[in-house]
Amino acid sequence: MIKLETDPKKIGYAIGIDLGGTYIKSAIVDSGGKIIKQFKIESFAEKGPAAVSKQIEKCIQFLSKGFKKNILGIGIGAPGIVTKGVVKFPPNFKGWKEVNLKKEFEKKFKYEVILDNDANCAGLAELKFGHGKKYGNFIFLTLGTGIGGAIVTDGKLYRGEQNGAGEFGMMTINYNGPECLGGNRGSVESHIGKNYFLEHESEELNKLGKKTDFSDLQKLAAKGNKAALQLLKKYGFYLGIGITNYFNLMDVRTAILGGGISNNYPYFIKECRKVIKERSLKTIKNEFRVLKSKINNNAGVLGAAALIFE
Amino acid sequence: MIKLETDPKKIGYAIGIDLGGTYIKSAIVDSGGKIIKQFKIESFAEKGPAAVSKQIEKCIQFLSKGFKKNILGIGIGAPGIVTKGVVKFPPNFKGWKEVNLKKEFEKKFKYEVILDNDANCAGLAELKFGHGKKYGNFIFLTLGTGIGGAIVTDGKLYRGEQNGAGEFGMMTINYNGPECLGGNRGSVESHIGKNYFLEHESEELNKLGKKTDFSDLQKLAAKGNKAALQLLKKYGFYLGIGITNYFNLMDVRTAILGGGISNNYPYFIKECRKVIKERSLKTIKNEFRVLKSKINNNAGVLGAAALIFE
Repeated sequence: MIKLETDPKKIGYAIGIDLGGTYIKSAIVDSGGKIIKQFKIESFAEKGPAAVSKQIEKCIQFLSKGFKKNILGIGIGAPGIVTKGVVKFPPNFKGWKEVNLKKEFEKKFKYEVILDNDANCAGLAELKFGHGKKYGNFIFLTLGTGIGGAIVTDGKLYRGEQNGAGEFGMMTINYNGPECLGGNRGSVESHIGKNYFLEHESEELNKLGKKTDFSDLQKLAAKGNKAALQLLKKYGFYLGIGITNYFNLMDVRTAILGGGISNNYPYFIKECRKVIKERSLKTIKNEFRVLKSKINNNAGVLGAAALIFE
Repeated sequence: MIKLETDPKKIGYAIGIDLGGTYIKSAIVDSGGKIIKQFKIESFAEKGPAAVSKQIEKCIQFLSKGFKKNILGIGIGAPGIVTKGVVKFPPNFKGWKEVNLKKEFEKKFKYEVILDNDANCAGLAELKFGHGKKYGNFIFLTLGTGIGGAIVTDGKLYRGEQNGAGEFGMMTINYNGPECLGGNRGSVESHIGKNYFLEHESEELNKLGKKTDFSDLQKLAAKGNKAALQLLKKYGFYLGIGITNYFNLMDVRTAILGGGISNNYPYFIKECRKVIKERSLKTIKNEFRVLKSKINNNAGVLGAAALIFE
């Protein structure tokens, strides 16, 4: 999979913008995934689309000012459903319905603008600048409040019929399992989504201290705390069931983990691997890998920039 | 998706051979999926590879004798793992290890020989000659003793890293669920594979009569028997959970059902659809379809022939 880019259209720089509910992060990124210049600003998600647009504009102006090299375009990663440059009802953004950011920013600036949802961007970042340089078939999982996914097959992001592929969190792994806001009783997210997990295990967690979170569990596990290790083992079990389902269905051997909870990787990975080994196809059992993303912190802007290099 | 074939290499006829443990079915098929001539013979699966080869040879000789038109090649669908023309340890075939049928038959006959596993062939038959003429993204499921699957994306069979994709039966839908021979507790197959289902529901089934099978259930359900309808509703629930997982993951809206148990379609489909509607993505809920294959009986030979037209 490793090859030097020779397509002249893809040599140059891209502006990547990660549109979040709290911050808008932005950067100029080169085609190798190196961040050249970056800028972070408040998101004004509560103030409506016009205020947010103004903030995005500030990012682009700051980044492009005085930058003399060839900018190929602007990539924007946004939450929710994104189709053909239109951001639809992004969660946590007040007063948004359907906003065509592509049209707006192509008018304001001379660059091509490409948008996609943040899960696809994270997968793309991994494909272009992370482990994807080595593996052309994998699922990228974001472990956080939500459990997102992005599917890469044959070195390309797989988007599905309506750009919604990779809803790993919605996979039912126990139809009798815990309830889920979306109606998917026993889904992966209802097991390992941050708030769900903390709620279901609150009895054990309370014994460890008030408001024990995944970062506390990480610290406790590092010190060898048995209860913390036991809880993270449980996390690894559920995650392993979900990954196995993907591996068996798609005949794929690589999963890459990002998102805040992936910092607990050292403490849940053993159980996760055990489950996969027990439940996967003969041809997968001895030859799979579950890796932690190396570009976790910058995945948002890198993935948005990668839209331009795709 | 509907278009007339204009590639001259693909206009003509193919010999399709469906290698089963009991029978070898074979046919000459045209590029539109019409069976021109067919031949069925005992499989001799118990007598070792040489005896089986001899039987395949008889099929080819019978079919090609006196056939004056352009035969493009021979496609063979075989059970188990098939890689690069080699059939590896097919279940129910005595004395087989790895047999290169491609090499053998390309030597014996002047035709190109292409092999694949029977699940892929069934999916390919559906793609080329069935509902696939209309839908370019779907999962094809074989509902029988085993629960097989074949994945089609963008009008092409998706094979995975080692030609093993589509193991729908191995998907865990309840990690606390019934045990499974392969070690996958609570897999789709452990719920709806023929023998598993009949065993788990034996108490209810015995009330309906001795050795009640899916064909009995079908007859009883057609007469409105409540217990039979209830059992098939259960079948539809489990099937719906599995299909939803696929739809959500891949952002796909079409599933096509083949195999013997698909004859019970009228009695399990309502519950199956209900589950999918309850548990799928907003963009999928109102726009999906679960169809019964129209080419069920000939899927084996048609799919094998389709390998030549692919």
